[in-house]
Amino acid sequence: MSEATSAATRTPKKSVALSGVPAGNTALSTVGHSGKDLHYRGYDILDLAEQCEFEEVAYLLIHGELPTAAQLDAYRSKLTSLRGLPEALRSALEQLPATAHPMDVLRTGVSVLGCLEPEPEQHDPEIGRNIIDRLLASLGSMLLYWHHFANGGRRIDLATRQPSVGGHFLQLLHGKTPPDSHVAAMNRSLVLYAEHEFNASTFTARVIAGTGSDLYSSIAGSIGALRGPKHGGANEYAFVIQQRYQTPDEAEADILRRIAAKEIIIGFGHPVYTISDPRNQVIKEIACELSEEAGDMRLFDIAERIEQVLWREKKMFPNLDWYSAVAYHRMRVPTAMFTPLFVLARITGWGAHVLEQRADNKIIRPAANYIGPPDRPFVPINQR
Amino acid sequence: MSEATSAATRTPKKSVALSGVPAGNTALSTVGHSGKDLHYRGYDILDLAEQCEFEEVAYLLIHGELPTAAQLDAYRSKLTSLRGLPEALRSALEQLPATAHPMDVLRTGVSVLGCLEPEPEQHDPEIGRNIIDRLLASLGSMLLYWHHFANGGRRIDLATRQPSVGGHFLQLLHGKTPPDSHVAAMNRSLVLYAEHEFNASTFTARVIAGTGSDLYSSIAGSIGALRGPKHGGANEYAFVIQQRYQTPDEAEADILRRIAAKEIIIGFGHPVYTISDPRNQVIKEIACELSEEAGDMRLFDIAERIEQVLWREKKMFPNLDWYSAVAYHRMRVPTAMFTPLFVLARITGWGAHVLEQRADNKIIRPAANYIGPPDRPFVPINQR
Repeated sequence: MSEATSAATRTPKKSVALSGVPAGNTALSTVGHSGKDLHYRGYDILDLAEQCEFEEVAYLLIHGELPTAAQLDAYRSKLTSLRGLPEALRSALEQLPATAHPMDVLRTGVSVLGCLEPEPEQHDPEIGRNIIDRLLASLGSMLLYWHHFANGGRRIDLATRQPSVGGHFLQLLHGKTPPDSHVAAMNRSLVLYAEHEFNASTFTARVIAGTGSDLYSSIAGSIGALRGPKHGGANEYAFVIQQRYQTPDEAEADILRRIAAKEIIIGFGHPVYTISDPRNQVIKEIACELSEEAGDMRLFDIAERIEQVLWREKKMFPNLDWYSAVAYHRMRVPTAMFTPLFVLARITGWGAHVLEQRADNKIIRPAANYIGPPDRPFVPINQR
Repeated sequence: MSEATSAATRTPKKSVALSGVPAGNTALSTVGHSGKDLHYRGYDILDLAEQCEFEEVAYLLIHGELPTAAQLDAYRSKLTSLRGLPEALRSALEQLPATAHPMDVLRTGVSVLGCLEPEPEQHDPEIGRNIIDRLLASLGSMLLYWHHFANGGRRIDLATRQPSVGGHFLQLLHGKTPPDSHVAAMNRSLVLYAEHEFNASTFTARVIAGTGSDLYSSIAGSIGALRGPKHGGANEYAFVIQQRYQTPDEAEADILRRIAAKEIIIGFGHPVYTISDPRNQVIKEIACELSEEAGDMRLFDIAERIEQVLWREKKMFPNLDWYSAVAYHRMRVPTAMFTPLFVLARITGWGAHVLEQRADNKIIRPAANYIGPPDRPFVPINQR
């Protein structure tokens, strides 16, 4: 079934502008065709999350097909070689205070790199893919270089022996080799977050790319869009909700009160999925395993109880953000870095969408409903 | 006539995605309702360009109404007081090489300022307007601080006695008091560029704002979108075309060849105006006056001849970018700063659109046409 058909039969959401209106073509993913499924280039997300390394999925999205074992090895070597940051970028990051939001730091880091290693004006898909890989490899380095410098003045070494994007992130964050279980969990989490059709941040990348602009501009714009609490910012808010409570019973009582007061609970429902978010079962399993390993089920139990209450009372299902908050907390990722982890994954989808928009060769320029004053005579300043 | 009606009767352009599809509400402007008119909040652009200071138009767009004389005085004082840059921003700008594109520098400057003077999470329209004013006042300072440092290592003083945004820019650029005629011309040019409904960069700002993100993220995204050659980047390309020729006759012969080869001439035609761009007559007059004052009509005459040829051969009219290139060249603005001047003007419209999108309280999330492979079975890596 084509997305256009699916979109036409779906009820547009009032809180969403352009809901169900096709804005372009993509070969990258389908979201919710059955109401509860997600496919990347035709592959089911559940297969990918179970059987793939994140770098395989990145290769699939950016380079077009799942890699062979030899291609994956070469790709990992390439990414590992692209983790370093130019001195000017490190100096710029050192200017950003510890109070800055990590998303603002990433947006700035990408923008600075666009000044230092600009994309040539004549766009070439091969060069474009290299820039996406460069960003995929170095975003974690940017974030954590700033993090350690701003909080303690340490200029950390950006080389690690971790072969994966997730492992590199965890090792730079904690300054020691992460447990294999954490690396595996992070890997699967990044697979889940990698791509999601025309969501607001991806659409931002495509609107910017539509003018013929460069990849860094598109990605800086995407990071800015993802930052919002109605989009990527949601996983940070999910954690804020979960940690309000000491016990599942306390959570249930308070959530029932909030439901009665018609308050929106962040982390539930979705603008496109109608039945469930297929990614939830994977991230819930990850959150459960990490909690068991840590011998501390409290946060998981609270999150699960809220899930049960929302389903029982409102038939609302958790989206990917809900248990991501639990999983990231278990890996001792600071809350403010939850959304930046989303960036580390989604850079693959964003980048691939920019290349698609270029191939489409269209500028995105909708119309507006005018609701302002009718044409009126000008009044000179001395008569106002 | 409402924009919706106008959009419905307009033929959608094939090279434009979402052409004619309303994506939201605005009270800020109407574009081309008669095929050749532009109104800001109901006022005709020709009246505004003839009778207003740019700061009056900025006040109209950002603060809602044309100011009284006392309000304009207070507004200018406010803007003048907001021209300085924090030390950390100046240090970050010092990291950017002379080879960087000025648009990338502005995008970075805005992003860094968002780290240093972040917008509070609970959005307040008054605080939002203050941030827009801050950007309006300081964008020129950012660009020219970097320009002089990167080209010669000078850390310039960012205070000038120029009361206007345009005058401040010209004085910082040239390091001396600009002629009144140049300040007046720059002022009118900025009025023309201030606002233009749901063009791609403004739409970018609204998509980003729709997620609940901050103003700096929206504006950094807009700058990235404006950078593209199909959007703001066009005025730089217009100048490249004009300076290819020594005489109008040479221009005519070559342009006729290019028309025959079906080459697109940048600076002509428009995705919304069907009859003419109303801003063209104003900027053409400015370009003519500045050329007469300089006693050098060569570039103007070449531009005008190309205008005549395109109209005679293709019924294509020049848009605002065409004679802007002549006017800016006469004010000795480097070509790479043509699009940044567009930013200095359009920040007013962008900012006002962000406030509108927040009031609308919608996330912008269109659908996509899926053109990729059908659902397919996963193949483990050792079987690829």
